[in-house]
Order: sequence, then C-alpha cells, then structure tokens
Amino acid sequence: MSKAIPSRSEDYSLWYNELVKKAGLAENSPVRGCMVIKPYGFAIWEKMQQTLDKMFKETGHSNAYFPLFIPKSFFSKEASHVEGFAKECAVVTHYRLKNDEVNGGVMVDPDAKLEEELIVRPTSETVIWDSYKNWIQSYRDLPLLINQWANVVRWEMRTRLFLRTAEFLWQEGHTAHATRQEAEEETVQMLNVYAEFAENFMALPVTKGIKTENERFAGAVETYCIEAMMQDGKALQAGTSHFLGQNFAKAFDVKFANKEGKEEYVWGTSWGVSTRLMGALIMAHSDDEGLVLPPNLAPIQVVIVPIYRKDEELEKISEVAEKFTKELRARNISVQYDKRDTHKPGWKFAEYELKGVPVRIAIGPKDLEKGTVEIARRDTKEKQFVAQGETVEHIVTLLDDIQKNIYQKAASFKEANTHQADSYEEFKEVIEKKGGFVYAHWDGTSETEEKIKEETKATIRCIPLNSNQEEGTCIYSGKPSKGRVLFAKAY
Amino acid sequence: MSKAIPSRSEDYSLWYNELVKKAGLAENSPVRGCMVIKPYGFAIWEKMQQTLDKMFKETGHSNAYFPLFIPKSFFSKEASHVEGFAKECAVVTHYRLKNDEVNGGVMVDPDAKLEEELIVRPTSETVIWDSYKNWIQSYRDLPLLINQWANVVRWEMRTRLFLRTAEFLWQEGHTAHATRQEAEEETVQMLNVYAEFAENFMALPVTKGIKTENERFAGAVETYCIEAMMQDGKALQAGTSHFLGQNFAKAFDVKFANKEGKEEYVWGTSWGVSTRLMGALIMAHSDDEGLVLPPNLAPIQVVIVPIYRKDEELEKISEVAEKFTKELRARNISVQYDKRDTHKPGWKFAEYELKGVPVRIAIGPKDLEKGTVEIARRDTKEKQFVAQGETVEHIVTLLDDIQKNIYQKAASFKEANTHQADSYEEFKEVIEKKGGFVYAHWDGTSETEEKIKEETKATIRCIPLNSNQEEGTCIYSGKPSKGRVLFAKAY
Ligand SMILES: [Zn+2]
Ligand SMILES: [Zn+2]
Repeated sequence: MSKAIPSRSEDYSLWYNELVKKAGLAENSPVRGCMVIKPYGFAIWEKMQQTLDKMFKETGHSNAYFPLFIPKSFFSKEASHVEGFAKECAVVTHYRLKNDEVNGGVMVDPDAKLEEELIVRPTSETVIWDSYKNWIQSYRDLPLLINQWANVVRWEMRTRLFLRTAEFLWQEGHTAHATRQEAEEETVQMLNVYAEFAENFMALPVTKGIKTENERFAGAVETYCIEAMMQDGKALQAGTSHFLGQNFAKAFDVKFANKEGKEEYVWGTSWGVSTRLMGALIMAHSDDEGLVLPPNLAPIQVVIVPIYRKDEELEKISEVAEKFTKELRARNISVQYDKRDTHKPGWKFAEYELKGVPVRIAIGPKDLEKGTVEIARRDTKEKQFVAQGETVEHIVTLLDDIQKNIYQKAASFKEANTHQADSYEEFKEVIEKKGGFVYAHWDGTSETEEKIKEETKATIRCIPLNSNQEEGTCIYSGKPSKGRVLFAKAY
Repeated sequence: MSKAIPSRSEDYSLWYNELVKKAGLAENSPVRGCMVIKPYGFAIWEKMQQTLDKMFKETGHSNAYFPLFIPKSFFSKEASHVEGFAKECAVVTHYRLKNDEVNGGVMVDPDAKLEEELIVRPTSETVIWDSYKNWIQSYRDLPLLINQWANVVRWEMRTRLFLRTAEFLWQEGHTAHATRQEAEEETVQMLNVYAEFAENFMALPVTKGIKTENERFAGAVETYCIEAMMQDGKALQAGTSHFLGQNFAKAFDVKFANKEGKEEYVWGTSWGVSTRLMGALIMAHSDDEGLVLPPNLAPIQVVIVPIYRKDEELEKISEVAEKFTKELRARNISVQYDKRDTHKPGWKFAEYELKGVPVRIAIGPKDLEKGTVEIARRDTKEKQFVAQGETVEHIVTLLDDIQKNIYQKAASFKEANTHQADSYEEFKEVIEKKGGFVYAHWDGTSETEEKIKEETKATIRCIPLNSNQEEGTCIYSGKPSKGRVLFAKAY
C-alpha cells in the first residue's frame, strides 16, 4: 500500500496526482475539468470551512447567498472586470430539454432559448453589488460585511485536482464601507485572517504582499495575497484580499447618504480562498508514504489499531481501546478505533499513513501484559511505548507537538529555499538550479516583469509587506528600484 | 413597522411575500426565478443545516461533493428518471465569451460550443451513480452512506421565494446497500430523521406517508414523504426519502461481489430537504406582526433593549445587560444587546417582533430601582416582570416553553383542520369550505386521483404510514378501498 504512490523525487507531479486519488481525497469526474471531492477530502475541507467561518464571524461578517447565474450584461458594467474575467466561463443559453424523436434520449429544445444568456458565476462581485445598490441608502447601513460559501466555475483548459478545476468551492467576502480607510483596513484584516489560518491551522508559513498591476484582480485597486512554498520550491497563492476602491460602487451606482446627508459612493473589498487550499495543504507537508496532516485539520486525529490472534485478545484490547476513545473524545480529540476483521494490522498501518492520520496507537497482547501501548507519530514516524495511564495526556501534548513540528519543518524548508539575487545571471541560475523564492530588485514596470517571465518562467509573486526599504537597481533593466520583490515559479 | 405587512386574513399570499422581504429573509434577484438569501434568512438556514448535518453524521453518513454539471446523455440512462426530470433545466452550451465588436460589451463566442451540452444539476442521482460504479466492487465497500449540500436548478415558470425557485439550496443523500432490506430501512430511517427535525426543531407536526405512483420521484420504487399543514390549511411537502430499488444500479451498471463472490446489483436510496423548509417554517408559525421562530432555530434567541433618557442611565442598564449577555451565552443561548442610539425602543420592539426573536428583555431606570426586568415572549406576546436574580433561569425555562407552545399551537391547528369525508359531495364541501387535510377512501387508481385533482384541486399528499386498516369504498368511483389516504390542496 505504501508502495502505491511514486516518490516525490521520481515525479513530483505524478506523486501529487496519485496521492490525491489513493488517499481518497478527490478524483476526476466525467465532466471535463470538474472534480468529485470524496468523503475523506471533503472532511478536511469541512474543517477548513468551519475554522474560517468562525474567524469570519468573529470579525463581524454574516453569510448570505446570491444567485449562481449572472446576466451576461452585468459583466460589461465594470470595464476592467470584464477584461480580466468574463471570458472563459460556462454560458447557459437554454432552459429546457425535450425527447429526441430521431436519435432517442434527450436534446436541447430550440424553442427554449433565453433572451439574455446567463453566465455561471466565476466570482460574484457584479451580482452582489447589484443587490447592494438596494441594501445601502445611508451611513447607518454601513459597513455591510457579507461572506458567501459557494461553487464557482472558470473554464480551464489544463486542470489539476484541487489546484485548478473548472468548478471549485470557495468563500467570497464582499464588504461595503463608508470610508476609504475603513475599506483598506478591512482588506488588510482579512489578509491577516488568511495568514493566521494558514499558519495556525494549515501549518503553512506564508509571505504577505501586494500583487503587481499585471497580477491584480480585475476591478481591484490593490490586491493583497499570501504566498506559500511547496516542497518543489514553487509558490502557491493561498488567498487574496482585494481593495476595490469605488470601482464596483460606480459601476453599479451604489451611493450612501453620509451623516451630513451628502451622497457618496461606497468603498468596497472582496476576498476569497478556495478548495485550492487543499492542494497547498497536501503538497506542503506530505511525503512518499502519503499525506501528512496537521492535527488541527485532520478529520481523524488518532487511530487505534488492535493487534491480536484470538477473539479473547481482541475483547481485552477493545476494553482498553474503548476507554481511550471515550477519554480522548472528552478532550475534543477525534478518534477512530479500527477493529475491522477484514483487514490486517499491516494493511491498516499503511492505510492510515497514506491518509495522514497524525497519531496511531497500536495495542497488542504484550501491551496488555505490560500496561503499555505503542504510539507512532505520522510526521517523524517515531514510535514509542507509553504507559496506559499516561496515554491520554501524552497524546494531548503530542498532537500539539506534531502541529508545531509540521509548521517548523515547512518554515525551515522555506527559509532554506529563499534566496537573494543581485544580477540577472545570478537570478537565472538560482531560479533554474535551486528554485524556491528569490528576492530581487525590479524597476516597477510591467515590461520588465513580462520579459523576466518569458525568459525564466518566474513571476513576481508579490511586493512583500514590511520588507526592508532597500535602494537598488533592477536585475533586468538596471533602472533604480526601491526594494526587492518576491519572484518564483508558481502553481 | 408592525403595520408594514398585510394581515394573513387580508391576503395570505401577500402576507407571506411581504414578510419574507421585510424581515430580511430573502428577495428576488435580477435573474428570473433565482433568489438572494439575505443574512438573517441565511442564518436560519445555517441553523437548519448544522442540525441536520449532525443528525446525518450521527446516522453514519459522510459529506462529499459532486459536479454542478451533468452530461446531457446521463439523463437518458434511467428511463423513468428522464421522463420525470430532465426537461425544465438550465443548459450550458458554450464555454467562452468574447468582446462584442459591433454592439460593445460581451457576446457568446460561437467558436466555443461544447461538443455535448451540460445540464446544471436538477438532482444528482445520475452523476453520483456514475461515480459509485468505480467506488463499489465488493460487499466490503457497502453500505456507502453519502450526503451532499449543494445548489440545484429546476427551471420554474411561477416562482415564490423559498417555496419554488429556479435555483435552491438543499442536501441530497445518496446511499448504496448490499440488500433490499437494508436500503428500505435506510429510506425509512431518513424519513424519521426528517420528521424528528421538523417536530423538534421546526416545531412542525408532520404526517408521514408514501406517495402515490403519480407523485413518486422519477426513478424511485417508492417515495416516502412528510407533509405539514400551513396556516391556510394547505399542505406543504417538507421532505422526501426515496427507495430506488436497483434502478440506478442497473442504469449505471453498479454491481458488487457478495460474500460468496457472486456479482449482484446494489440497492439505492436518495433523500433530500431544501430551502423550501424556510417557507414552511415561516408560513406555519408567523403572525400579522411578523415572524414567529421556534427558539431551536432562532439565530437570535434573546434580545435586550435598554430604555433610557440619559447617558448615565444607559451606563447602568448596560452593566446589567452585559452581565445577562455573558451568563446567557454561557448557557449556549444566543443574545443580542441592542444599544444602538440610532433607533428608539419602540422601533426596536417592532423590528424584533418582525424578525421573530423569541424573547425580548427590556430594562429601564425603574427596573434598576426595583431590581427587575421586563420579559416579553414573541409567541403569545405576554409580558411579565422578573427579578434580575431569577432572569437567567427564567429564560432557560421560557425558551423551552416557547418551543413547546409553538409546536402545540401548530399541532392543535392541524388537528382542528383535519377531517374525514365519506362521500364525494362531503369531500368537495370540506375541501372548498374548510380546507385542511381530508382523509378519504380512494380506489388506488391514477385515473381517479387525476379526476379528483382536476375537479377540486386537491391531491393525494400521501398514503399515511401507520394508518388504521379500514375497508371502505372510494369516494369518487365507489370501488373498494383498503384504507383512507390524505388529500389536500398543496404548495
Ligand atoms: Zn541562498
Ligand atoms: Zn371535521
């Protein structure tokens, strides 16, 4: 079973694909580019959702739900939004099927053509700001702090499970504010929520920054992002938060009367993370034996496997196992006791390794004699014997250790694979030979950014927040630069 | 504010529509037939979701996610499924827009036509059973107990907020079993989960039964349902659970090797409830002042309103209010302390009445002197003064009382509006003059069922489970009948 997936060094890309399928996370569906999220994968996504949802509510947001379909004409209202977005998307043109008298089966009824085509939402700014026009009259209606959990569709030619799929699940926050400052603060606040979630739950160190104009969200004034490093050194954008200025307010005529009774356009933000985070979680931590899940997002945190030959042994082991199950659950730890007789312990060990269960307890007849259990941690694969009386406390501490260790490992890897380059030659060498994140000076122009991308496939992931102000010269053009930006090849 | 909605006796239908909008539950969107679920409405739906999700998991089900789109050809695979379903639905024919050089804006790119049209799922049996074919090989893979929370689309000509919308939110359970008996038991188990949810959380008494062949789900062998009575005496189907037999297994060739190694088709069920439950909740309990929410589903269970003239008064009231807020929250009661100075207490009273908040606490300077608070319950509108020291305990009990009282009121109404009819004359008179549920004998034929529907607009809601075996003669045809069935006009 542990041999079922190729190693990372062999073929990182195949390793990822096979791991996603073999661990029961997701698979391709018969619909091109759409995935099926399988129960185990969905259980991880549910944990992400619950955690983020709580964080959104603690920062004052409420959930709502807006239509799946957006009238085609809405996309023309915000000029730069249509340029950046509305092209590759699913278009509904008809609303009825009928029996196909000639070929059998069903056919699209040509009489049921829509007057205006509907677009399956690729993102919901347009339809939401169209509602906000009716919801906002006065400063008393602001701020309006709304989030939506939804499916969205962006037609993609090359798809990969979780990382890039035609349909994906996400949340999209859409807020409206009375002042520019408040909207900017909201944008940064949500970026920080994402960073906190990535670091504390996904065990994923991230770099916060601002996108260049080229990479900015269509319709935004400024796009903030968090960038994470995968084990192959490539960057993965793990969340974006957009300051929309008054762009959508102007496009959809959303004004409010301020305290003085004067009409002003409102200020907006939007921010989102998607099932892409599943891809990041898998690629950042897992190894050649399978998934490595941080305990804070693991659907099963502890699995107990009995090792026995005779039924009487199983009975006695089960007594101990069920006692632990109960005690651990009382500590809010999710436990599975797997006493299926259809599979052998070795098979189970490999299976739970593949599935990334952080802690495995094995109990055999000898453990009963000695009053011990064998505890194995998934991240380091270390095993140790622990007295039964100390097991619960040991596991509480161990889960915490594992969470921290997975983060530390990722942080060390990121640090070791982050470089500076002071010339274009050096830059190209680092990108080609070492990979990872490269901090280098850039002249601030889209032309240079595109040339570098063409020649090296590395893109500017972000202009890091809180980076040192450091005067320098652009590695490509030699023109002056005010600080280094973050380059990397990216997913 | 309380005058903002028409009374039920004036215009029940308008009362409902206005209530849904004025209470901030939902509104129509610019897309025909699609609704926007507003934050307060969505908060109620979230409580429903959380409760049901917990009940599904307790009965062994896991969540997963399947594609939004279904290839057109899939609908032809199960013959009766296509007859009943695949007609009124949204059809995706293209995957790209392009700039419209002539008229400006965007247009559908004629070069981006799909080879096979995709249907936006009206329900997911077909695409899910297509996956199950790969997931199920042996008896060890069974039972497969999966649920999906999703949006679905059924093109509807006449729509009403929550009750009938083109897009709606729902859950759909899809299970696969080794034996007919196990699948039948699952079907009944999930019907009972729905009935329990309706009665204990929605405070909605329901009648369980089996649908006639006419009303059966397309592709099912048997459809079980729960039927509730609204305040206008009409029935509303509040959940369905389908025993699918081997129909979808045969259509999608889903077989398993049994313990003897012999291949057999698996047995299936599917079951669902939708945002339609929101309509049922609203229509069953609310009154001319607004919503009446059972505490078990109220997003805000208790609101505290300060009554004051001077700032020093507010300060002292706030001390008491914040103490209650803290103590009530520690008891898992959701509390909102509304000390906004932008609205007067009278406005707030009407607002929270409209929104159906079960308990309102008002605290004024006199209460501070006397050590009391005024507690008003939404369901009966009774008010009473309670000593501050007893307030928390009082409210814990009161919320429980309100939940029970709302159920009892609905149950009494249902009983008072349930009748028997022994002749067609009597039947027509009851249906026309009294409305409500009518139990009558029926000969078991679709012809009779349709004639009665044509002539009276009443349909057979279900053949009730656990009804008395009672020989009789059909009210319409005079032919023999083995028991009464439930007739009503329905939503
Ligand atoms: Zn270096
Ligand atoms: Zn009667």
